[in-house]
Amino acid sequence: MNATIYRSAINIAATCGMYLAAAMLVPAFVDVYYGHKDWQVFLLSSALVGGLSMITAAATRAGPPPFNKKMGFLLVNLLWLVFSLVGAVPFMMSSLDMDFAKALFESVSAITTTGSTVISGLDNAPPGILLWRSLLHWLGGIGIVALGLFVMPYLRVGGMSFFKMESSDTNDKPFARIASFTRAFVLVYVGITVVCAITYAALGMSRFDAVNHAMATVATGGFSTHDASFGYFNSLSLLWAGTFFMTLCSLPFSILIVFLVRGRLDALRDPQIGVFLSYLVLFSIAMAIYHRMQNGVPFHEALAHAFFTVSTILSTTGFASEDYTLWGPFVVAMAFFMTFMGGCSGSTAGGMKAYRFIIIFNSIRTGLYKLIYPNGIHTVRYGRMTVDPDVQRTVFLFFATYLMLWVFGSVAMAAMGYDLVTSVSAVITALSNVGPGVGPIVGPAGNFSTISDPALYLLSLMMLLGRLEVLTVLVILTPLFWKS
Amino acid sequence: MNATIYRSAINIAATCGMYLAAAMLVPAFVDVYYGHKDWQVFLLSSALVGGLSMITAAATRAGPPPFNKKMGFLLVNLLWLVFSLVGAVPFMMSSLDMDFAKALFESVSAITTTGSTVISGLDNAPPGILLWRSLLHWLGGIGIVALGLFVMPYLRVGGMSFFKMESSDTNDKPFARIASFTRAFVLVYVGITVVCAITYAALGMSRFDAVNHAMATVATGGFSTHDASFGYFNSLSLLWAGTFFMTLCSLPFSILIVFLVRGRLDALRDPQIGVFLSYLVLFSIAMAIYHRMQNGVPFHEALAHAFFTVSTILSTTGFASEDYTLWGPFVVAMAFFMTFMGGCSGSTAGGMKAYRFIIIFNSIRTGLYKLIYPNGIHTVRYGRMTVDPDVQRTVFLFFATYLMLWVFGSVAMAAMGYDLVTSVSAVITALSNVGPGVGPIVGPAGNFSTISDPALYLLSLMMLLGRLEVLTVLVILTPLFWKS
Repeated sequence: MNATIYRSAINIAATCGMYLAAAMLVPAFVDVYYGHKDWQVFLLSSALVGGLSMITAAATRAGPPPFNKKMGFLLVNLLWLVFSLVGAVPFMMSSLDMDFAKALFESVSAITTTGSTVISGLDNAPPGILLWRSLLHWLGGIGIVALGLFVMPYLRVGGMSFFKMESSDTNDKPFARIASFTRAFVLVYVGITVVCAITYAALGMSRFDAVNHAMATVATGGFSTHDASFGYFNSLSLLWAGTFFMTLCSLPFSILIVFLVRGRLDALRDPQIGVFLSYLVLFSIAMAIYHRMQNGVPFHEALAHAFFTVSTILSTTGFASEDYTLWGPFVVAMAFFMTFMGGCSGSTAGGMKAYRFIIIFNSIRTGLYKLIYPNGIHTVRYGRMTVDPDVQRTVFLFFATYLMLWVFGSVAMAAMGYDLVTSVSAVITALSNVGPGVGPIVGPAGNFSTISDPALYLLSLMMLLGRLEVLTVLVILTPLFWKS
Repeated sequence: MNATIYRSAINIAATCGMYLAAAMLVPAFVDVYYGHKDWQVFLLSSALVGGLSMITAAATRAGPPPFNKKMGFLLVNLLWLVFSLVGAVPFMMSSLDMDFAKALFESVSAITTTGSTVISGLDNAPPGILLWRSLLHWLGGIGIVALGLFVMPYLRVGGMSFFKMESSDTNDKPFARIASFTRAFVLVYVGITVVCAITYAALGMSRFDAVNHAMATVATGGFSTHDASFGYFNSLSLLWAGTFFMTLCSLPFSILIVFLVRGRLDALRDPQIGVFLSYLVLFSIAMAIYHRMQNGVPFHEALAHAFFTVSTILSTTGFASEDYTLWGPFVVAMAFFMTFMGGCSGSTAGGMKAYRFIIIFNSIRTGLYKLIYPNGIHTVRYGRMTVDPDVQRTVFLFFATYLMLWVFGSVAMAAMGYDLVTSVSAVITALSNVGPGVGPIVGPAGNFSTISDPALYLLSLMMLLGRLEVLTVLVILTPLFWKS
C-alpha cells in the first residue's frame, strides 16, 4: 500500500517537473529575443530537468493513483518541494552565480509567491531570469488556488474548507465539477493577468515590466524587475492600479469566478470579503493621515502610498512604493503586524487570513458572554452560518501553530546573530509569504542578499510551511504519518 | 438587584481601602526610624484614605453580600482599581514629586507584582517609599493567589480552574475549607518571605534590602531598592538564592502548601511543574552556553547569570543581574519571547502560564493526528487527565485574547512615537507582569521614567488586564454585563 502511494506521488511530481522544464523555454526565448547569452542556461536546465523528470516518470509509471489522505498530504508536500528544487536550477546555472542556498531561497520565494529576493541589481539582471521569477510566481499562484479549491477541502486543513463544502455552491461536489471549474478559473486568472499587464503598460511601464509585474501582482508574489520595486516608476496612477489588482487577487477566486463568469453579485456577500476590505480601507486611511501629519506630504500622495502599502502587505504581495519604514514608528508597527494577517481564503494571498480573524473575534465575544451566562446558548457565527466547535478548534489550532513556528523561527534567526527586529520580521514575512520585513536589513529598502545560508534555509522552510497552511507540512513530520 | 450588587461591591472595596490605609503606617514607622521626613506623607495618606474609606464603607453598609458571577467580576475589577488608586496616594504626596500618571503607574506596577518603575535614583529614594513599593508587591501577591484559589474557579476564568475543582483535593470544595486553607497559605507565604529575607541578609544584603527584596521575590514582583537591581550586590551566591526563591514562588501555592504543610510529595506531580522546571533549566543552560561562547565569561558565572535571568523572566519577577540584552541577539530574542510565557497557575507569577502551553501543545499534536485519522479517537491530555473541549476552548480563547491585546497595545504605543522594539516589549512586559522589556528605553538597563503619561496609562491598563487574566476585565466591558 505505502509503496504504491510513494510510487504514484513520485510519478505525479515527475510529470509536473516535465511541465516546469517546458516552462523554462519561455525565458529561453526571451533571452534570445533580448540577445542575452543566458538563453543557454534555460535550454540546458530544461533539458536536464526534463530528461530527469521523464526518466523518473517512466520508472514510476503505474495505474490510476490511489487517492486517500496520506497520498494527499504526501503529494502536496512533494509537489512544492519538486517545484522549489526545479525552479532553483536556472538560478544556479545563470550568470548571477548564486550558490545552492540562494538559488533555492529565490525559487521557494517565487513558487510560494512570497517575493523576498537575494538578488541585488535587478535592473541589470538578465531578462530571462527576471521572467523566470515572475513565471514561477504566476505558476505558484495557480498551484495554490488549485490546492485550496480541490485538495485542501479534502484534507480538511484550514477551517474554511468545512464551510466551502457545506455552503458554497461552487464546490459542494468538489470533484464533480473540476473540469468546468478549472476552465473558468484559468480563464479568470489569465484574464486578470492580461488586463493587469495592459493597464500597467498603459500607465507607463515598458511591455516587459508590465508583463512581469502583472504576473507578480496576480499571484500576490511581489518580485519586481527593479531594485526600487514600484517606486522605480514614480507614478501615483500605477500605485492605484497596483492597489486595485493586488486587492482583487486577495479575494477568493471561487467567488471571483462566480461573479465574473456567472455574473452573480450575491457571491460577494462572503463575510471575509467585507471584513478584509473594511480593515484594508481603515488601515490605509489611518496610515495616510499619519503620513500626512508626520511628514507633511500632500494628502493625495499620502493616500496613494498608504493604500498601496497596506494592500501590498495585506495581500501578501510585497511590492514597495518607497521605504515606508521611514514614515514613522506607527507605520513600522502597522507593517509588522499586518504581515501576520493576510488576505482571503481561496486566493493567492498568504498569512493567517481574514476568515480566521472573524472566527477568532466571534469566539472571543461568545466566550465572554459564556462567562457571564454559562447556561445561555451562545453560538459562534460566520455571517449567517453557525461555526461548529470543530471548525473553531481547527482555526485556533492553526493560529497557535502559526505563532509557535514564528517564535521558534525567530529565536533560531537570533541564534544565528540577527537582531530582534530582523529576526522576528524576516520569519513572519516568510511564513506569511509577504516579502519584505522591517528594519534596515530585510525591510522594504533592503533585500535578503546579505542573509547567511543557514538562515536562508530556515526562511525557505518557513515560506513552504506558510504556503501549505502549516499543518499540511507538520502532518508529514509526525511519526504516526509514516506508520503503515 | 444591581443596586445591591454595586453597594456591596463598593462596601467590600472600601473595607479593603481601610486595611491599605492601616498598612501605610508601616512605611511611616520606617521613615521615622531612618529619620526621613516623608513619614508625614504616609501618616497624611493613611488618614486621608482611611477616613474616606471609612465614610464610604459606612454609607454602603448592608447585609451579607449577594454572591453571584456578576458580583464576582465587578468586585475583582473594583478591588484592583481601588488598590491601584490608594497605592498611588503616597507616591503623589511624597518628596519624589510624581504626577498622577507616574504615581498610578508605580502603584499598578506594584500591586500587579510587575515591577516596572518610573523612579530613577532608587538608591537615594526615601526608605518609606521603597518599603511601600515592596509592601504593595507583597500584598498584591497575596491578593492574586487568593483570587486564583477562591474566586477564579468560581468565575471559571482561565482553563485551569476547571481542573482545580475536579481534580485537586486541596480545593474540591472551594468554600468549605477556606478558613483552614487561608491559614495554611498565609503561614507558607509569610514563612517563605522570612526564610528568603534571612537568606538574602546572610548572603550580604543589608537588613532593609533583604526585607524589601524578599517581599519583591515572593510576590514575583521585581522592585529593587537599587537602580542596578540585583547587580548592585555583585554576588553569585545572591543570584543563586534569588533564582531559587523566584522559581519556588512561580510554583502553584496550593501545591506548595500540600507539600510544605502536609508533607505530601506526590503533590509535585502536577504536569505544569515538571514542564515549567524543564524549560527553565533548558533555557538557562542554552543561554549560559551562548553567553560563555559569545562573551568569554567563566562558565560558572555565565550559568549563575543565565539561571537568574531566565528565572526572573519566567517567574515574571523582573530583577536584573546585569544588562543581559548586551549578551547577544539570541538572549534578546529569548528574553522577549520568555516574557510571554510566565510561571505556573495558582502562583504569584503572571504571563500565559505553563499549563496553557501544555494544553496548546497537546491540542496541536492531537489536531495533527486527527487530520491523518479523522475517525480515530484522539483526546487531549493534561498529565493523566483528559482535557475536555470546553477547557481547550477557554485556553485558546485566553491565548488569542492575550495576543490581540498585545497587538493593539503595541500599535497604540507606536502611534505615540515609540520604536517597534520598545512598543512590543513594553506592552508584553506589562501584560505579563514581568517588569523590564528589551531595547535601550525599557530594557533591563533602563526604566519607564521617560515614558509619556498617555503611554503610562496604557501600560497601567495592560498590567491590570494581565494580572486579572484578561477575560475578567474584558467581561465587564461587554454591554451584556451591564444589562439587568
